[in-house]
Amino acid sequence: MPFSMSQASLPALKFGLNALSAILDKAEAYAAEKKIDPSVLLNTRLAPDMFSLLMQVQIATDLAKTGASRLAGAEPPRYEDTEKTLDELRARVAKTLSYVESVDRAQIDACADRTFTFPLGPKNTGEMKGDDYLNHFLLPNFYFHLTVAYAILRHCGVELGKTDYLGGIPMKISPR
Amino acid sequence: MPFSMSQASLPALKFGLNALSAILDKAEAYAAEKKIDPSVLLNTRLAPDMFSLLMQVQIATDLAKTGASRLAGAEPPRYEDTEKTLDELRARVAKTLSYVESVDRAQIDACADRTFTFPLGPKNTGEMKGDDYLNHFLLPNFYFHLTVAYAILRHCGVELGKTDYLGGIPMKISPR
Repeated sequence: MPFSMSQASLPALKFGLNALSAILDKAEAYAAEKKIDPSVLLNTRLAPDMFSLLMQVQIATDLAKTGASRLAGAEPPRYEDTEKTLDELRARVAKTLSYVESVDRAQIDACADRTFTFPLGPKNTGEMKGDDYLNHFLLPNFYFHLTVAYAILRHCGVELGKTDYLGGIPMKISPR
Repeated sequence: MPFSMSQASLPALKFGLNALSAILDKAEAYAAEKKIDPSVLLNTRLAPDMFSLLMQVQIATDLAKTGASRLAGAEPPRYEDTEKTLDELRARVAKTLSYVESVDRAQIDACADRTFTFPLGPKNTGEMKGDDYLNHFLLPNFYFHLTVAYAILRHCGVELGKTDYLGGIPMKISPR
């Protein structure tokens, strides 16, 4: 039965990025309605030593573009991390989506047993097999930062539900 | 290059459940050190209409056992949801781990194109293909509840880092 590394990675990243963009739209609408400067939301953290909403979005997009490129054996595009507004963050999400859609699926499908190394913080190098990287690094980290972005906005009072987090998933819903 | 539905699901659930159990250990140590009743932590929420830590753990384990059983075409074990303490929650995580380890991998590997239905809330039925269910429902939901459990404890001051959330992943770390 067909299943592949690209099927287990690219659709998840695309759904997550689209959901993140729609969540940022709701944050903007909430800020307008409540007459809150959106930068207040963007600077909110769940704990003083956790990252702000702005950085959660930057890291989630970093993970998506870096993850997709590593799995495909390509060089990830560099981002300058200069975003300050919701519009700029949505543009970052959009360019990440375009990049994820552009990577070579055949290369990703061939990478489960390939070992690759990558920078880990300022001083170290990490080394993982492709399937382990997808299962135990890329997806859990990507969903972590999406969830924290969502939770920061919920904590601030933005009306979001689980369907905003999951995005428009291919599920047929019928009354029981 | 080999990759399968069981490889994309079972290891992720196992690492997540083990990490969750270790996070609950750290919550217990923090409560003892600060002389806090652990039930205070277990009843904390990030927003009044989000679930408490106790329920985040119940839902994460529900997703793991129900997800593994649906992918395998088996009937999920029923849990009574009577846990009130950290010990009882860790026991629930442990029995979920045992269950996830017991499911039929060959059945899961054969389910990517199988469509199945499942109860969705009190009134509806959801219908998804196996690969879509794994990619767009099981994994994002599972990581959502793990992350919120982690974030509740971080918000309460428990010293946790990303490695607590990821668990003991198969990554070789070397100085650069």
